[in-house]
Amino acid sequence: MRAIDHVAVAVRDADSAMRYYLDVLGLELVGDEVAEDPGVRLVYLAAGPDRVQLVQPLRPGPVQTWIEERGEGLHHVCFEVGDIPAVLGGIPGQAERPVFRGGRGRRACFLAETPTGVNIELTETEPSF
Amino acid sequence: MRAIDHVAVAVRDADSAMRYYLDVLGLELVGDEVAEDPGVRLVYLAAGPDRVQLVQPLRPGPVQTWIEERGEGLHHVCFEVGDIPAVLGGIPGQAERPVFRGGRGRRACFLAETPTGVNIELTETEPSF
Repeated sequence: MRAIDHVAVAVRDADSAMRYYLDVLGLELVGDEVAEDPGVRLVYLAAGPDRVQLVQPLRPGPVQTWIEERGEGLHHVCFEVGDIPAVLGGIPGQAERPVFRGGRGRRACFLAETPTGVNIELTETEPSF
Repeated sequence: MRAIDHVAVAVRDADSAMRYYLDVLGLELVGDEVAEDPGVRLVYLAAGPDRVQLVQPLRPGPVQTWIEERGEGLHHVCFEVGDIPAVLGGIPGQAERPVFRGGRGRRACFLAETPTGVNIELTETEPSF
């Protein structure tokens, strides 16, 4: 794990949610895109070198279900790694996790169940902003 | 907000929880301390320049209640700022938030209710590791 890439917040409406982070906390809007699969809008907000990612579900799916069950809130933490398959191969029980093209065009994957109830994503860092 | 200082995970037993982050994910143990008020153990794990903080309640209190209600999981995100009173003064409704001596001897505070269900802490950066 080279660093924390981003901390993600599941929200119902990213336009509304981002106002707090931009106008009140002073973060900077650095990205706004749609990931067609799984159907989420991803908004990236910068705090210096770090990123908060707002995840807004655009259709029924895991994130929408998560919000319905728990309300909006901290959804996952994403670590930056060099090579996802190599890292997965070193973690027991994770070698077969699906790797997808995630936000910002990067390869990414979510680990299967982890202790302490934390959703953990891994992402490679190219391309980057 | 200069950067994300740490992402915190509320856990029942930090000794058990840290094994996953250290042995499986390869983070590095860089701090382990007790905050007598509010009675929590704080374990700091480094992923490169970034920090995961494990928060283990040592007696009944808000973190223990949080775990009992929701289970272990992502508890808060902490932003690094230069001067907490100055920042609080610029955020509507937050000027009177209590500032305390938090982990690593730093001044810190939690914002009152924020949108999107995220617990947000602010911390100054001296002393630091």
